[in-house]
Amino acid sequence: MTYEVKSLNEECGVFGIWGHPDAAKLTYFGLHSLQHRGQEGAGILANDQGTLRRHRDTGLLSEVFRNPLNLEKLTGSSAIGHVRYATAGEASVDNIQPFLFRFQDTQFGLAHNGNLTNAQSLKSELEKNGAIFSSTSDSEILAHLIRRSHNPSFMGKIKEALNTVKGGFAYLMLFEDKLIAALDPNGFRPLSIGKMSNGALVVSSETCAFEVIGAEWIRDVHPGELVIFDENGITYDRYTDDTQLAICSMEYIYFARPDSNIQGVNVHTARKRMGAQLAREFKNQADIVVGVPNSSLSAAMGFAEESGLPNEMGLIKNQYVQRTFIQPTQELREQGVRMKLSAVSGVVKGKRVVMIDDSIVRGTTSRRIVKLLKEAGATEVHVAIASPALAYPCFYGIDIQSREELIAANHTVEETCEIIGADSLTYLSVEGLIDSIGIDTDAPNGGLCVAYFDGKYPTPLYDYEERYLESLNEQTSFY
Amino acid sequence: MTYEVKSLNEECGVFGIWGHPDAAKLTYFGLHSLQHRGQEGAGILANDQGTLRRHRDTGLLSEVFRNPLNLEKLTGSSAIGHVRYATAGEASVDNIQPFLFRFQDTQFGLAHNGNLTNAQSLKSELEKNGAIFSSTSDSEILAHLIRRSHNPSFMGKIKEALNTVKGGFAYLMLFEDKLIAALDPNGFRPLSIGKMSNGALVVSSETCAFEVIGAEWIRDVHPGELVIFDENGITYDRYTDDTQLAICSMEYIYFARPDSNIQGVNVHTARKRMGAQLAREFKNQADIVVGVPNSSLSAAMGFAEESGLPNEMGLIKNQYVQRTFIQPTQELREQGVRMKLSAVSGVVKGKRVVMIDDSIVRGTTSRRIVKLLKEAGATEVHVAIASPALAYPCFYGIDIQSREELIAANHTVEETCEIIGADSLTYLSVEGLIDSIGIDTDAPNGGLCVAYFDGKYPTPLYDYEERYLESLNEQTSFY
Amino acid sequence: MTYEVKSLNEECGVFGIWGHPDAAKLTYFGLHSLQHRGQEGAGILANDQGTLRRHRDTGLLSEVFRNPLNLEKLTGSSAIGHVRYATAGEASVDNIQPFLFRFQDTQFGLAHNGNLTNAQSLKSELEKNGAIFSSTSDSEILAHLIRRSHNPSFMGKIKEALNTVKGGFAYLMLFEDKLIAALDPNGFRPLSIGKMSNGALVVSSETCAFEVIGAEWIRDVHPGELVIFDENGITYDRYTDDTQLAICSMEYIYFARPDSNIQGVNVHTARKRMGAQLAREFKNQADIVVGVPNSSLSAAMGFAEESGLPNEMGLIKNQYVQRTFIQPTQELREQGVRMKLSAVSGVVKGKRVVMIDDSIVRGTTSRRIVKLLKEAGATEVHVAIASPALAYPCFYGIDIQSREELIAANHTVEETCEIIGADSLTYLSVEGLIDSIGIDTDAPNGGLCVAYFDGKYPTPLYDYEERYLESLNEQTSFY
Amino acid sequence: MTYEVKSLNEECGVFGIWGHPDAAKLTYFGLHSLQHRGQEGAGILANDQGTLRRHRDTGLLSEVFRNPLNLEKLTGSSAIGHVRYATAGEASVDNIQPFLFRFQDTQFGLAHNGNLTNAQSLKSELEKNGAIFSSTSDSEILAHLIRRSHNPSFMGKIKEALNTVKGGFAYLMLFEDKLIAALDPNGFRPLSIGKMSNGALVVSSETCAFEVIGAEWIRDVHPGELVIFDENGITYDRYTDDTQLAICSMEYIYFARPDSNIQGVNVHTARKRMGAQLAREFKNQADIVVGVPNSSLSAAMGFAEESGLPNEMGLIKNQYVQRTFIQPTQELREQGVRMKLSAVSGVVKGKRVVMIDDSIVRGTTSRRIVKLLKEAGATEVHVAIASPALAYPCFYGIDIQSREELIAANHTVEETCEIIGADSLTYLSVEGLIDSIGIDTDAPNGGLCVAYFDGKYPTPLYDYEERYLESLNEQTSFY
Repeated sequence: MTYEVKSLNEECGVFGIWGHPDAAKLTYFGLHSLQHRGQEGAGILANDQGTLRRHRDTGLLSEVFRNPLNLEKLTGSSAIGHVRYATAGEASVDNIQPFLFRFQDTQFGLAHNGNLTNAQSLKSELEKNGAIFSSTSDSEILAHLIRRSHNPSFMGKIKEALNTVKGGFAYLMLFEDKLIAALDPNGFRPLSIGKMSNGALVVSSETCAFEVIGAEWIRDVHPGELVIFDENGITYDRYTDDTQLAICSMEYIYFARPDSNIQGVNVHTARKRMGAQLAREFKNQADIVVGVPNSSLSAAMGFAEESGLPNEMGLIKNQYVQRTFIQPTQELREQGVRMKLSAVSGVVKGKRVVMIDDSIVRGTTSRRIVKLLKEAGATEVHVAIASPALAYPCFYGIDIQSREELIAANHTVEETCEIIGADSLTYLSVEGLIDSIGIDTDAPNGGLCVAYFDGKYPTPLYDYEERYLESLNEQTSFY
Repeated sequence: MTYEVKSLNEECGVFGIWGHPDAAKLTYFGLHSLQHRGQEGAGILANDQGTLRRHRDTGLLSEVFRNPLNLEKLTGSSAIGHVRYATAGEASVDNIQPFLFRFQDTQFGLAHNGNLTNAQSLKSELEKNGAIFSSTSDSEILAHLIRRSHNPSFMGKIKEALNTVKGGFAYLMLFEDKLIAALDPNGFRPLSIGKMSNGALVVSSETCAFEVIGAEWIRDVHPGELVIFDENGITYDRYTDDTQLAICSMEYIYFARPDSNIQGVNVHTARKRMGAQLAREFKNQADIVVGVPNSSLSAAMGFAEESGLPNEMGLIKNQYVQRTFIQPTQELREQGVRMKLSAVSGVVKGKRVVMIDDSIVRGTTSRRIVKLLKEAGATEVHVAIASPALAYPCFYGIDIQSREELIAANHTVEETCEIIGADSLTYLSVEGLIDSIGIDTDAPNGGLCVAYFDGKYPTPLYDYEERYLESLNEQTSFY
Repeated sequence: MTYEVKSLNEECGVFGIWGHPDAAKLTYFGLHSLQHRGQEGAGILANDQGTLRRHRDTGLLSEVFRNPLNLEKLTGSSAIGHVRYATAGEASVDNIQPFLFRFQDTQFGLAHNGNLTNAQSLKSELEKNGAIFSSTSDSEILAHLIRRSHNPSFMGKIKEALNTVKGGFAYLMLFEDKLIAALDPNGFRPLSIGKMSNGALVVSSETCAFEVIGAEWIRDVHPGELVIFDENGITYDRYTDDTQLAICSMEYIYFARPDSNIQGVNVHTARKRMGAQLAREFKNQADIVVGVPNSSLSAAMGFAEESGLPNEMGLIKNQYVQRTFIQPTQELREQGVRMKLSAVSGVVKGKRVVMIDDSIVRGTTSRRIVKLLKEAGATEVHVAIASPALAYPCFYGIDIQSREELIAANHTVEETCEIIGADSLTYLSVEGLIDSIGIDTDAPNGGLCVAYFDGKYPTPLYDYEERYLESLNEQTSFY
Repeated sequence: MTYEVKSLNEECGVFGIWGHPDAAKLTYFGLHSLQHRGQEGAGILANDQGTLRRHRDTGLLSEVFRNPLNLEKLTGSSAIGHVRYATAGEASVDNIQPFLFRFQDTQFGLAHNGNLTNAQSLKSELEKNGAIFSSTSDSEILAHLIRRSHNPSFMGKIKEALNTVKGGFAYLMLFEDKLIAALDPNGFRPLSIGKMSNGALVVSSETCAFEVIGAEWIRDVHPGELVIFDENGITYDRYTDDTQLAICSMEYIYFARPDSNIQGVNVHTARKRMGAQLAREFKNQADIVVGVPNSSLSAAMGFAEESGLPNEMGLIKNQYVQRTFIQPTQELREQGVRMKLSAVSGVVKGKRVVMIDDSIVRGTTSRRIVKLLKEAGATEVHVAIASPALAYPCFYGIDIQSREELIAANHTVEETCEIIGADSLTYLSVEGLIDSIGIDTDAPNGGLCVAYFDGKYPTPLYDYEERYLESLNEQTSFY
């Protein structure tokens, strides 16, 4: 039996604010700039002097808050918000965050970006002891751990709970009198702290949210750290010292917004350097560079500058496609109807094209784009990928398909090149990737998690361990 | 009294198809690729063996057809569709096209892109004779003229009507047994003909629609031409020989999609050449090139290549902004909340930036972007516009604000530069523009209408004449 | 070939007000009480010092104005409104009234309740002369006649137009400086005038609207009359003296609301008298009286009182059924799932029931209700109809199905009784109907149109004449 | 400090089915007939061979299932459903039932009609032990008790939990392999069992649901009983023998549908008998009887028959009012705009009216209706209430306002009569009520709970005890 990693869990975005009369509105605008991190659902929870109110629903943020009253009712000076990634599974509103836990004596909210590796064991144990979960999400577990902790102090309960969960997590917790942010011991997920001119404190998955609301970046949250916003301002605390930075390299490669800085590195600039490095590693002849819009445009800029080849708009993405309810039928698709991407024959006709993309997952998209470019008249299409070959799943919060579906887990570069119909295929080297990103750290792999490329996970895999090892035995690895 | 040109009328997009069992669906996909030409409303009218059915509504195409039944009911093998630009005025569904005219003996549909210059006179005359209009749009006039023509033949009536209306127009008319496309004598608006592999004939405002549905371009419709699709295939006819090509240069500058070809010229390529030419005309020192997304990215590519400066992603447009129902309040805006565009400080900090934009209308947007860049740390911002200064209104179908509101109609380049807070301001020359586009024609101005830049209109202005002359007397022209 | 009278046209409701700062809101509340007269669509047109604004859409009034902004934008001190009946045909928003006609020099609105008998001829003639209609409704014709009239005076044009149209009509016309109500020469449709305590003038299809807005009834509009509301208050005028009252008896029988008064007669009271008279004409033995809810409850009260039998709630109508989007499938229906009406076995078991209904159209509903009652344990079901047998179509504004579908046009009373499975069937006599209503008039048939029962139409049938006579030849009439 | 009973909790409706391929659809139709029991929200949970799926939302059932896909996805042969009453408080979807509890090893659903009297104590205790509740509803408590029970057997856990909760409850629980219904030891809430022709078993708050889906009534669930539907058919079990029937008399008075039978008594018939008894207790002279629609029409029938006075439709309820989004402003209300109820002056003018209503809560509605009738011309209005004076709150599931707001808790009959502006006021006696209902039982008060009228509660009040006694001390009771 082959091992199938089912839609591993979600990548998401979180945002929190403390000390601003328009807390919920600013959370809205902050989340709006994080919308690329999750489109399945969104929610905001606000705290008005101890009264927590929430609105959440499935859909884009703008749909969830189409009725402005749903935002206006969220009064108060602190708030947390969440955007949720579209997983294949259950799009139930029960799973949309922030979660709100109400007790007879208190209440608190919780938003989570990441994936726990020991969620299944913890959930089993808790249920055996009478716990009832209101969602199928792992994110609720922390609340149960906090409530069941026998540690006498409030912060003690929270630290105990944070030391119990394993994996990747950036948590925001909104209590009646404080907002707490916590990051996992490897800092797998990005999380930054900022300040507004009126003194309000903010925390966000990405710094692009700070630009949007006019906040100034203070610093990124450290692995194993607890950051508390309350009436005393910011307090930094730790729940563990056993930490080592291993931030998700996919954030730099395709996930984060180009205007965000992560660990002090601007994402666009990192991508441009990856493109330039890719140009240096590229061994073929070509006439023009064409980036696949929108995520590969930075890398294409870097490749073009380094190679001296002209950078051209040889592929156009229809900006309105995202919300289209009517799709071509299979029949129409076969007749050539395509909605998302067009190749510009006026640009690529008669040219040898270097097609730059950020990554290849199953290979089907790459094959389709190569075909588009050739039909539009490109004489050669050389595919250059601004990251190494993606051959292993992620267990820390990015939804990478099963190994079975990853083309690089099952095929050599040459085979992949043939499958996608390209004239050549070049991946960026792992070293090239690490150098291009260039975080200022002494941690291994330049402070990055590159397990998707080399299968070396920075932590034990807990509940995933056994099944993962099985899967490796059943497949030949090419990397 | 100053003359105010009120939101002159709409720029729109039209699409038609003849001879395909999925006519309405293909019209949907065709219109989808024309969505950038109009977001106020959309409609499709299909002909099922003489029975015309229509669905139209305000909103984006995907909203208008959110319920798939509204598309499925549009059976038949021919169809026309329309997307409508958001004018300031009345967003009534009555004004959404295609219009459907039903008579006891027949029925026909009409879609119009453009603006008539003698609409007011014609409407007055018709109303004096008992005509009742169902919309406030000028587009209905043609139907009244056809129905009231005393010419004995069907085509005679249509030609008579087309010779009566003046200005810019691309009409699609769907009759029970034919589809007719007609273009004004100057070819102000683009209109192209294509063919699908099954023999179906298509006509579209832009060729990008052909890419999407897998159709092949045949040729553009000529000024003064009538193109008939019916059971005999295509027939070319003319309603006048008094023609001269003067296609709208703004289509190349900012309106059309980069993957469209107009008069044989690819729009992206033309823009890139404008950028390159702009680089040659630019006289200042800078470190990096930053295009204003999305419309100026082609010009920025051309500028960067020609100048040798690196092309950087110094401005980010939030791709989700378009459908957001909640906007920052004035108070929040003053606190720095901005939703549409962010400057990337990691990219522009400490740099002398050439900011490339396609045009300046009122100057307020340019001032805001210059400010964003400087706040993000740019040491100098040199604004370079990939078109000449916009100083005169359009009467042929593009909604350019009143002269009063056009900054270049009221200020010198130096004054404008100061108003927008730039370190320098460079406009592309009119000659540079014409050369960059490079249509293969002997017509004056290279076959382009450049009246927005030089005030020399290729036709009489009819109903607009008097008010236009008044407006000139009241203002000093700087060009 | 048999003659099929296709969904003859609509029954509707109109309301108008002049001289109140909340004109549109009061029109909303007035129309709300007229909602039973039409559920397909609704619209309101308001006049704010010469600027006419309108909102209309398909659906119930409350759905059309779900967004309160659509009502709030209708500022001004006069307004007209319309609710439209659900016809089988085209539920297009183009057909929803009031119509709004905009000209370069003026504008006016129009709302119509009724049906024209010469619409087809007039439309043909107008179209031959170049007219274009924006709807498939007959109601627009009047506007074209007014605009094309060569009569030099404004009121002259209107009178000429009103003398040209034939059939049943109650028109409301809202001009920039006046509101005009006009009724056909037979007064087929009800139309009443009222006054509010602040002096505002109102006009409505039914007086129940006056109760709702706190207005006082003045009098009903006379046949052939024109009533003008303007700055001078009310003016009464006439466009013809060739009149004779023949108000639709179906208004009393089932259409109007029981709390309305028509021609001075309260509808509930008239129905109760019909029930009492029906009891006198009824020849059978029974234990209890059961009215079919809701329209037959008044008649059941009258029948019970006159007969001395107890009036029981043996049938229950689900009050929430009307807006249910999910209907039982055929399979579920066969298994006994029924949503609209339930028989109360606790009430009817072991009883001989007189089932009172207002009318029988096709007989299918009656058959179903008889079956329900018998399944619930009724030992006998005697059907007593509080109106005569419906055997002829209506051409003046009520949507009575074709003769072919009218059970009484094709079957004797005995046959009908057998078809519907009743133990006896009794219709009210035409004389009994006329006496029960008892309008204070000398006009024939007590001022009522009873053509549905005796086939004697009070006017020529114009466009319907020929086809109607044909239909009679093909069928045996039983009355 | 006065004791305020805040919107005590909800009255709701439940429906369940076992063994039918269209389980969810039949639940829809069953709930549809129970819609009068709750309009705030609705939900259905279906069991497809162990997989539980649910859809729930705020609004009417038809709104919740406007999109038919939400019903179609609920496949499986068993289902439970719930309609929820509009409480003043939180209309959050989290509180909409059925609840769905998912565990790693199993899952089950729960729907609850009633109110627990020891909810607060139980919740405190559970939370102290780490429980987290996902709603603010009391209904979830049972699930926590079941999961935490140490009883080794499945049924043992359930029985233990049912013996722990106190108050009024009708529970439906849907497990992977069975559906369990349970009723509280006093049978406060109605719950009946039925069977369809294909053998499917059903359970419903009211028997009217059986009529709608064509099911046959078997019997009502007994107090303290557990009814299990599974592959073996029906099993009857008990969790306690300490029971005594005290069914809510308000179900007969106004809450249940007239076509339902409760404890073998038809609701319409009971109401008619209450009306007849009220006529015998009534001591005044009058001309006509007018029932307040719709809930008092049965009582009015009985009163009219017993008294010999004619029963008239003197008040009309607008059937469309319920879903209107636009309400008269205060200003318009003062001008006389009223949407819900109209008095029919043609009926009541000059008459001495007996106005029959089912109950008086605050008196404000009665005062308004008396005023309406007098303004419409009634010379005298004698108010006759078909139930005793409502002077005490309910703790078992009906939302009766606080004692402070109950007019009969604070005023004598004479004072009340004066406040509502009536010429006389007559309440039905408690004995008259009990006799009119006439359940076949030896239990005290004829098996009814009449605590609202006499303050004698059939059980201890637990969490409510202390506050209730306080409230009594502060007010003078008049009954």
